Amino acid sequence: MAFAPGSLSDDAAAWKGQSLVGVQQLDEAGLNLVLAHAERLRGQPRDKVLARQRGKILANVFYEPSTRTSCSFQAAMLRLGGSVFCVAEATSSAKKGETLEDTARSLACYADVLVLRHPESGAAKRAAVASRKPTLNAGDGVGEHPTQALLDVYTLCREMCGGIPAGGVRAALAGKTICMVGDLKHGRTVHSLAKLLANFDVALVYVAPAGLEMPAAVTDVVSRGTASQKSVDALAPVVADCDALYVTRVQRERFESQALYERTKGSYVVDAALLRTAKKGCAVLHPLPRVDEVATDVDALPNAAYFRQMEHGLYARMALLDLVLGRPSMLDGLRAALGL
Amino acid sequence: MAFAPGSLSDDAAAWKGQSLVGVQQLDEAGLNLVLAHAERLRGQPRDKVLARQRGKILANVFYEPSTRTSCSFQAAMLRLGGSVFCVAEATSSAKKGETLEDTARSLACYADVLVLRHPESGAAKRAAVASRKPTLNAGDGVGEHPTQALLDVYTLCREMCGGIPAGGVRAALAGKTICMVGDLKHGRTVHSLAKLLANFDVALVYVAPAGLEMPAAVTDVVSRGTASQKSVDALAPVVADCDALYVTRVQRERFESQALYERTKGSYVVDAALLRTAKKGCAVLHPLPRVDEVATDVDALPNAAYFRQMEHGLYARMALLDLVLGRPSMLDGLRAALGL
Amino acid sequence: MAFAPGSLSDDAAAWKGQSLVGVQQLDEAGLNLVLAHAERLRGQPRDKVLARQRGKILANVFYEPSTRTSCSFQAAMLRLGGSVFCVAEATSSAKKGETLEDTARSLACYADVLVLRHPESGAAKRAAVASRKPTLNAGDGVGEHPTQALLDVYTLCREMCGGIPAGGVRAALAGKTICMVGDLKHGRTVHSLAKLLANFDVALVYVAPAGLEMPAAVTDVVSRGTASQKSVDALAPVVADCDALYVTRVQRERFESQALYERTKGSYVVDAALLRTAKKGCAVLHPLPRVDEVATDVDALPNAAYFRQMEHGLYARMALLDLVLGRPSMLDGLRAALGL
Repeated sequence: MAFAPGSLSDDAAAWKGQSLVGVQQLDEAGLNLVLAHAERLRGQPRDKVLARQRGKILANVFYEPSTRTSCSFQAAMLRLGGSVFCVAEATSSAKKGETLEDTARSLACYADVLVLRHPESGAAKRAAVASRKPTLNAGDGVGEHPTQALLDVYTLCREMCGGIPAGGVRAALAGKTICMVGDLKHGRTVHSLAKLLANFDVALVYVAPAGLEMPAAVTDVVSRGTASQKSVDALAPVVADCDALYVTRVQRERFESQALYERTKGSYVVDAALLRTAKKGCAVLHPLPRVDEVATDVDALPNAAYFRQMEHGLYARMALLDLVLGRPSMLDGLRAALGL
Repeated sequence: MAFAPGSLSDDAAAWKGQSLVGVQQLDEAGLNLVLAHAERLRGQPRDKVLARQRGKILANVFYEPSTRTSCSFQAAMLRLGGSVFCVAEATSSAKKGETLEDTARSLACYADVLVLRHPESGAAKRAAVASRKPTLNAGDGVGEHPTQALLDVYTLCREMCGGIPAGGVRAALAGKTICMVGDLKHGRTVHSLAKLLANFDVALVYVAPAGLEMPAAVTDVVSRGTASQKSVDALAPVVADCDALYVTRVQRERFESQALYERTKGSYVVDAALLRTAKKGCAVLHPLPRVDEVATDVDALPNAAYFRQMEHGLYARMALLDLVLGRPSMLDGLRAALGL
Repeated sequence: MAFAPGSLSDDAAAWKGQSLVGVQQLDEAGLNLVLAHAERLRGQPRDKVLARQRGKILANVFYEPSTRTSCSFQAAMLRLGGSVFCVAEATSSAKKGETLEDTARSLACYADVLVLRHPESGAAKRAAVASRKPTLNAGDGVGEHPTQALLDVYTLCREMCGGIPAGGVRAALAGKTICMVGDLKHGRTVHSLAKLLANFDVALVYVAPAGLEMPAAVTDVVSRGTASQKSVDALAPVVADCDALYVTRVQRERFESQALYERTKGSYVVDAALLRTAKKGCAVLHPLPRVDEVATDVDALPNAAYFRQMEHGLYARMALLDLVLGRPSMLDGLRAALGL
């Protein structure tokens, strides 16, 4: 298996059988390929898409709960005509002392593709190396969560450009300003997204409470790319310039005091009043679940992209599953038709 | 969405996209429609039924466990050719502080229909309002459990009339005597059933231990309808007049003492000896699980309708799912055929 | 239902609707039938196999967790074109005091076949008697685990003979030496396997730490058959004569002291060094999960049959499900085609 940077590129046939453990495996052509494929799948009638992976089986392995990611992968596989069985940590042989590698190898005997959520960084790569079948990382600790990054970029393209244009993500996002808001220190999704956007022609703006700023490990990567970046104190003064706000969950318990939380939350809570001062069409994204940081009075506004984001995620995961499972070869089809 | 009384009536096309949160949404024509559709589905070859909702996805969301209801909905969706993913409270984002509304809205991005079991009264309506997809109440606390009421009426019709006659439930149940036995105070199913039967030409007889009688809130509703009702002390004297016994679970811990339980249980336990004195063909229903209140020596008798009741529930839920999912439009079919 | 010894024999049509609770129900012809059917299914294109049980539903009921067995049955049913719903003890009505018999009877209203894992010996037979649908034992306490025995014999045949020859298991295993290694006292799988092999022309060799030897209850059965058996102290001296090593998990806590464990483990741990002294092609089997008793340096060797064993198990379970579900009758097919 190829885990090298850029190993997943514009040759769709070469994706068959590959694992995705981190987003750096995709070069720009690879990113465009998977998102263009997502666009294509959403444009096709569901009945037609149902024939793509008919009879294929996904092992959905979650060592920690994550309803949204789990349901999204399950629905993606079902929409392709495949089926799913689920393994949760509580019922897994890990409790009997089995290594992750042995579990992955065993499940690969039953399934055609594995999806793994695991609390430990690096777990997805270990499973992918052990498994004979493609293994997709659905989040491994503070490590990677590549399908979240894919769906976030896809959502930005859909919201700003209505799809994936001929020029790909580069054309879709050219000249756009994307503001990341909230707890940028602990938010795994904003780290991945910032790194993925580093080489595009975008302006990144960070708004975080004191002590929860974007870490140097991320800003260093961005500074080596073509994107610009800056940090500002509050959202209100910059919101008129932003094409998208990517809001992350802020946990009250990260603050020294409830008083400090109440005093500062105005700078990163998005509500309908704030959006009246925003650029026309400014999209509000959020990885969900949200608590207070996007007010419910935003839900009915066209700016509210966070539920559409869920749906974009479904298509991004369908595209990814479809690519790594590959199409049956002509020979397979012929054998099936002849009953061989 | 239409939650008004009688909003689900005899126009099948109008059911498409609707939610069912309470049984009062169905008028008599609506009740007849769904039960006649259940009859039709059970009469068709399984292969043919499998084509009805091929590729459609059910999100089966259970915030409290209920094996029977959950399995019944899953099997119903699978029998229609659809597929299912399950969400349990233990793995849901509710633990991260997400509102039920946000959860419902998110799952509606992945699924075509939602089924919700929730401990709080009113939860199903809240989810149905938030979700873009039809949402079916599988029991919300002391609130509603409309599919249980549907399957109970369907079972009465099947047992007494062999199906749903041209005159509908009204014709099937005309002149029948239905005895409700056991803990009628806490039994949600007997409350819904009594209210649903209030406007038919039936005689309701209640047999409950002291302190566990049918509440006034229910008898008041029945007294405004066309059904007659009376309470009696013991089952034995009335069993010769009953066309059906609806037995509910009696929990020993509801009694002041074990001695009181033992003394009184003879008046509401159904066994083979009692049934030898019953009207010919008297059907014994029970929502299950049972403990002692229906003796196992009844299981082999033709009177034992409680396992058939499970199967009737499967068809009632298939009918309901099929109606709210609707048939694909001619246009959808054409697009699929042309690969558009 | 027929639970008598040899009730499942070489008439495939007679398997339809039957339950498998113990391996003694299969006579030699029955064993050959199911394994030959497994061979046939693995040789067919997946698309073709997908049509065999299309639309049929499996209730996968696990009162204790067992990832591997559960996933294997689920995948087997999905590969046949059927679908699955799962019931776990934590969510079952057993908690509400329902008997296993009532649960089985209820689930049989929703599903076409039941698979049951239960901690109590005899539970599978109780469920099979109560259920109207075929019920397969996926392990009941210290009782039976017949599909494990089937897959173990199938693996031995595949590894030694490349499949099931015309002469069946008898021909495949004739003259072979099979060594069982590890905790032979508590290992349910080796007990079943030894008993199943008792009437074939094989030599059984037992290697177990002191106090964990094969029980008399098993050796007595073997002594009445045609297989030879002997116990030896260490694996190294006999490994050159063995065609297969069946290694079982040894739990450190079974030993009086850690020191004793360390001193004796050399006699039953299988590693690459040991296998260099083994007979050419000697296959290493293990029911998994393993801990230390098969070193990971064996994994890359052709001898390592334990992951192939998982896959053989998938086909053995597919064959069993397919036989008890039976093929639709011509009449069923005609009714479906005519839409009756």
